[in-house]
Amino acid sequence: MGPRWKGRASEAKALADPMSKIISDLHSSLVQSEAHAVLAGYSALLAVEAEQTELLNRACFGRPIVTAEKDKQWYQLGMEEGFYLCHSLKCLKIVGEDNSTKNDDELWQYMKAKKETFPLLYKAYSHLRKKNWVVRSGSQYGVDFVAYRHHPSLVHSEYAVLVLAEGEDGENGRLRVWSDIHCTVRLCGGVAKTLLILTINKNGQGTATPSCLEQYAVEERTISRWSPEQCREDPATVANGIK
Amino acid sequence: MGPRWKGRASEAKALADPMSKIISDLHSSLVQSEAHAVLAGYSALLAVEAEQTELLNRACFGRPIVTAEKDKQWYQLGMEEGFYLCHSLKCLKIVGEDNSTKNDDELWQYMKAKKETFPLLYKAYSHLRKKNWVVRSGSQYGVDFVAYRHHPSLVHSEYAVLVLAEGEDGENGRLRVWSDIHCTVRLCGGVAKTLLILTINKNGQGTATPSCLEQYAVEERTISRWSPEQCREDPATVANGIK
Repeated sequence: MGPRWKGRASEAKALADPMSKIISDLHSSLVQSEAHAVLAGYSALLAVEAEQTELLNRACFGRPIVTAEKDKQWYQLGMEEGFYLCHSLKCLKIVGEDNSTKNDDELWQYMKAKKETFPLLYKAYSHLRKKNWVVRSGSQYGVDFVAYRHHPSLVHSEYAVLVLAEGEDGENGRLRVWSDIHCTVRLCGGVAKTLLILTINKNGQGTATPSCLEQYAVEERTISRWSPEQCREDPATVANGIK
Repeated sequence: MGPRWKGRASEAKALADPMSKIISDLHSSLVQSEAHAVLAGYSALLAVEAEQTELLNRACFGRPIVTAEKDKQWYQLGMEEGFYLCHSLKCLKIVGEDNSTKNDDELWQYMKAKKETFPLLYKAYSHLRKKNWVVRSGSQYGVDFVAYRHHPSLVHSEYAVLVLAEGEDGENGRLRVWSDIHCTVRLCGGVAKTLLILTINKNGQGTATPSCLEQYAVEERTISRWSPEQCREDPATVANGIK
């Protein structure tokens, strides 16, 4: 299943405006303005002015929040988004509720304490973002993330992403029983996404500091329903996907 | 969500031809012909003549199998279907591969050995069948069963059924993590079914003999997405389901 562009001009638009360039512009702008976000529960709040509003929207980080302030737009960054801008892109500082800037280690501890699975989810999130995928929450589809080839206004999300831990899935993991696999694959088919399983192998590393992340390996697998028609002999039929 | 009838006349047709009556006719016919099915792996094979072919089709038991035999139609009954006709309706004998009739206890052991979850699944299956629901496999949707108000040719399946064990779900159960719940509820919404969770409480009984089944209790719960619109003040809006 390829990308499903929204409308005719979208693919050309996306090609002319690569996500890597948008992220790079956002990076420069945030660095220049010495942007600071404030931790608030499961998110980090960031106030920006018009130019950065546009860049955050184009790069698909956070969600705008409606406030009474006229000259500033507030953005609510998810935990992975905030940590990515701070730790991976190094273009954002995050301060705690006591107004002191948190270093990467402190932030990592905060995120882990809020969400036990943060190290795994963050590895998956950053893995995809580094490849210039736009990554958003997948909770609407009962998966961890959805991944877009470009901005969601131009293209439908292509992958529904589940993040699993290699060898330590425990009793709370997904896809441990056939019915869950069937359910997830059926849902993905119904909404025209491919199920992408990212299995994180910690390679014996724990989760003590963010430097562990460098040792984690990511294995990518897609799961799709096997369709007997795809095995017919005529290669043209297969290529065209005709049933 | 109410029943979605297929076409206009279907509801009247169903009302004029209640499932309880069809099952009762099937029962009489199978008793009269002293019907025997043969165990074959995960199913029981039953050969019937024209009249019973029609009754099995109308009652939705088993699947017809294509064979070279002209005067007999073979049916493949699932494990729950076979045991229901044998143990609950007492209108079918089931013989083993050695051609000796299996009593209920022997059959129960056979089923349990083939599928560890058989006692739970059977309790759920029989619970719904006794209320005259038509119950079929839910594997297409990643659930245990789907339930129809009447024959699938007249109505779409109304419930997607998951069977859980009270208090002993273990590591292989469904719906243990939010993402699985989201995924399942989203899929059910997408295919216009209501998610029905049947939780079986064994009440301290084991699974030694089929007589345990009488002590098992079944708790019914439906899960649906909460839609904020349903809480608006105007009761007419709520009743009409207008968003």
